[in-house]
Amino acid sequence: MGSTRVLTGITTTGTPHLGNYVGAIRPAIRASRAEGVDSFFFLADYHALIKCEDPARVARSRLEIAATWLACGLDPERVTFYRQSDIPEIPELTWYLTCVAAKGLLNRAHAYKAAVDRNEEAGEDPDAGVTAGLYMYPVLMAADILAFNAHSVPVGRDQIQHIEMARDIGQRFNHLYGEAWRRVGRAGEPFVLPEVAIEENVATLPGLDGRKMSKSYDNTIPLFAEPAAVRRLIAGIVTDSSAADAPKDTGSNVFQIYQAFADAEETAAMRQAFADGISWGEAKARLAERIEREVAPMREKYAALMARPDDIEDVLRAGAARARALATPLLEGIRLAVGLGPLSAGVAAGGEGARGGALPSVKQYREDDGFHFKLVDGDGRVLLTSVAFPAPRDCGQALARLRRDGLDAFDLALVEEAQALDRDAVAQALAALAAADAAKAGAKGAA
Amino acid sequence: MGSTRVLTGITTTGTPHLGNYVGAIRPAIRASRAEGVDSFFFLADYHALIKCEDPARVARSRLEIAATWLACGLDPERVTFYRQSDIPEIPELTWYLTCVAAKGLLNRAHAYKAAVDRNEEAGEDPDAGVTAGLYMYPVLMAADILAFNAHSVPVGRDQIQHIEMARDIGQRFNHLYGEAWRRVGRAGEPFVLPEVAIEENVATLPGLDGRKMSKSYDNTIPLFAEPAAVRRLIAGIVTDSSAADAPKDTGSNVFQIYQAFADAEETAAMRQAFADGISWGEAKARLAERIEREVAPMREKYAALMARPDDIEDVLRAGAARARALATPLLEGIRLAVGLGPLSAGVAAGGEGARGGALPSVKQYREDDGFHFKLVDGDGRVLLTSVAFPAPRDCGQALARLRRDGLDAFDLALVEEAQALDRDAVAQALAALAAADAAKAGAKGAA
Repeated sequence: MGSTRVLTGITTTGTPHLGNYVGAIRPAIRASRAEGVDSFFFLADYHALIKCEDPARVARSRLEIAATWLACGLDPERVTFYRQSDIPEIPELTWYLTCVAAKGLLNRAHAYKAAVDRNEEAGEDPDAGVTAGLYMYPVLMAADILAFNAHSVPVGRDQIQHIEMARDIGQRFNHLYGEAWRRVGRAGEPFVLPEVAIEENVATLPGLDGRKMSKSYDNTIPLFAEPAAVRRLIAGIVTDSSAADAPKDTGSNVFQIYQAFADAEETAAMRQAFADGISWGEAKARLAERIEREVAPMREKYAALMARPDDIEDVLRAGAARARALATPLLEGIRLAVGLGPLSAGVAAGGEGARGGALPSVKQYREDDGFHFKLVDGDGRVLLTSVAFPAPRDCGQALARLRRDGLDAFDLALVEEAQALDRDAVAQALAALAAADAAKAGAKGAA
Repeated sequence: MGSTRVLTGITTTGTPHLGNYVGAIRPAIRASRAEGVDSFFFLADYHALIKCEDPARVARSRLEIAATWLACGLDPERVTFYRQSDIPEIPELTWYLTCVAAKGLLNRAHAYKAAVDRNEEAGEDPDAGVTAGLYMYPVLMAADILAFNAHSVPVGRDQIQHIEMARDIGQRFNHLYGEAWRRVGRAGEPFVLPEVAIEENVATLPGLDGRKMSKSYDNTIPLFAEPAAVRRLIAGIVTDSSAADAPKDTGSNVFQIYQAFADAEETAAMRQAFADGISWGEAKARLAERIEREVAPMREKYAALMARPDDIEDVLRAGAARARALATPLLEGIRLAVGLGPLSAGVAAGGEGARGGALPSVKQYREDDGFHFKLVDGDGRVLLTSVAFPAPRDCGQALARLRRDGLDAFDLALVEEAQALDRDAVAQALAALAAADAAKAGAKGAA
C-alpha cells in the first residue's frame, strides 16, 4: 500500500566521472522514477568533513555534486533532495544513538579496523592519526537513516556493515525506549529498521587503463570535462595492437564503455563494425561522439546550474523543509521518549514512568521511640513514614497490611503526617512493588 | 574590560541534598552575583542520557534540579540559565569537534579508562558494557564550552581533564580552520580556549555518618525534605557518647553542619554552648532549627515552582534564546569555515581557499603527436593543456616560462583551446604553485 522510502547518500568529495555516472548516478535517478518509491537523496556533507579538512574543497565539491545530480535529471519535485547539514535533527539524533551504541560495536567497523591495521603494520599506535570522526561515522550514518525511517538503503557490498550497524543501534534504542515511546502516545516502535538493498549488478565502467574507472587509479574521464578533453582522454584508452583493418575484440574497453551509453541497436551496429575491422581511431571517435550525445545536454544544464548557486541553494532548502516535515515530529517523539520533552510533559511521563525506573522500597528501622517503617520512591524520596511501633513484629505486620490492602484500607492513624501524604505517589509505589514481587515470583517459578 | 563568561554545567540526575547545596549550589549562585561576571548555567540533560536510561527519572530530575536552582536564588534575569537540549548548535558543534578530535585523546579520558580497568579486572572485554556515549562525553563537553566561548569553567579537581580536553580539541580546530575562519571575514580564532578555574576550597559537608555527605554513602539529608524528616535524620547523626552535660567536641558533625549554615555570631554562640556542655539532643534541635530557617523560604519557592512546570519551561526557553544569541552566529561562522555554508558562499571561499587546500600540479607527458604539459587544479580538473612540442626540452622550457611569467606574458598559440581558458583559475593555480615553491625554498633554507 504505502510507498517504500529509499534513502541514498551522496558523498560530497571529488569531481564525478563517467564511472560514477554509469555506476551510481544514472541508475539511482532511474530508480527514483519507479512507482511506489519515495526517494530521499541527500548530500552527505557532514561525512565529508571526516575525510577532508580543506573547506574550499568541501564547499566546491558540494556545489558540483548537487549541480551534477540535478543536471543528470534528479527531479527535486519528485524526490526529496536535501543536504545533511540542513537537518538539525541529524546531529541531535546522533547523540541519542551515541548514548545507546555499544562501543564494542564501533570497534568492529571495517573502516576503523582498516586504519588500525595500517597503523599496526607500520608499528604505530593503533589509533595514530585516527579521528573520532572516522570512529563515529557509523553512528552518524545510523542517524541519517533512522531520522527518516527509511525502509531501504541501496548500497554496495562494502557498505552492508554500516546498514547492519544502523539496524543494531536502532534495535537497541527500540528495546530501551520502545515502552516510553508508546507511553507518550506513539504507536509501534520508535525506529523502522532499514533493510539492506544490495546492489548486485552495479555497472562498472572500465577506465582508461582497463581497470575499473576510479579516482584512485587516476584513469577517469570527468563527467563534465570539455568535449576536446574527453576526446583526448578517449584517444589515450589502452587498446591492443591489431592492424587498423583487422576485426577488433569486443572485450576492449572501447566497446565496453560504448555499450554503457548505447542502446541495443547502436551496440549491435558497433559490434558489427568491430567484426568488420573498424580502426581503433574510428572506434574511439564514435565512442567520443556517443558519449558527447548523452552528456552534452547535461553539461549545458550543469553549466547553467553552476552559474546560479543560489538557485541550487533554494532547491536544497526546499528539500530540507520536506525532509524535516518527517524528522521534526519523529524527533519530538524521541525527545519525549528519552525524557527530554517539555517539563510539563516530563512530569506526566514521570508518574507513569516510575514503573520502568528504579524501584520504590520499604525500610524498617529503629529509633528512640520504637520501630518504624517507611516507603521510599525510586529517587530516595520518603513517601510515607509510620508512627513508632513498640515491637518489630507490630511494625512488620502493619507494613504487610499496607502492602497487601493499599492506602485506602489502611489505618491512617498509623502514618505520620497523614494529612501531607501524596496519595497518588504512595499508590503508584505500592503498585510498582507489587508488580516487581509478581515478576520475581514468576521468574522463580520459571527457573 | 569586558566581563568574564563563566560556564557551569548542572548534572540532571538525582535529588539535591544539603551537601550539594553547601558545596555547589549556594557558592555558585553567590559567585554569579559578582561584578564583571557573565554567568552561564545549563542543565546538562544530554549528559544525563549517558548514565540514565530511565526517561521518567531523567524528566523528573531535570524538573527538580531546575526548580531547586531557581528556588535557591539563581536569578534568570541576571544569569543565562538554559537547558543543553534546547541548543541545537551543541550537537551540531559536537560533530564538527568529533571530526577533529584525536581518538587517542579520548582513549585517555579518566571515566572511560576507569570503565576499561573495571572490565579488565573482571576478566571481561575492555569495552564490555561501555557505550559510545561514555566514550564521547568529553567531546560533548567541549561543545558545551566552546559553543559559548566561555572563558572560565569552575570545576573540581576530578574534572580538570575534561577542560584540558576541551582546550585541546578547540586548539586543534583553531589550527585546522583558523585561516578559513579569517578568510570568511571573522576576526581572531574560531574558539576561545577555556581556562580551568579549580575550586580549591569547595565546602564539603559531613553526612549523617561523619563521612562526606554523598548519595553514594546513603548518608544525605535531602535539601527539600519535610521539616519532620530533616529533624528525624538529624536526630540520627552519629555523635560521641559524652554525658549530657559534658562539654562537647566542636569537631563533631553536628557542629560542622551548623557552622555551614550559621553566621559568625551564631557560630560563636554555638561554640560557647558546646564548651558549656549542651546536650546532643539540644544541639541537634538547634541545628535542625537553623537549617530550617535557611531552607524554609526556599522550600516554599520550590513547591510553588514544582507546581508550575510550564513557568520553569518558559524561564529555560528564554534562557536558551539568550544563549543562542551567542551560539547561532558563532556556528554560522564555523559552518562557513569548515566549508558547509550556503552554496554561494562556498564558491567564494573556494576560489580563495584553494591556497589552503590540495595544490595544483603540472604534468608533462607524451602523446602520439609529441610532448605536452598540462596544469591541473587541486581537484584534478585540467585547467590548461599545451599543444604538442617536438621534444621534451621545448615542452619543459615552455612550461617554465608559463610558470615564471604567468599567462598574460605567455604565447597563447602554445595553449590548446586558448579561447576556452578559465584565466582566473589558471592565474590562481600558478600563484599557488609559486607560493608553494617559495615556502619549500624557505623551509630548505631554514633546515
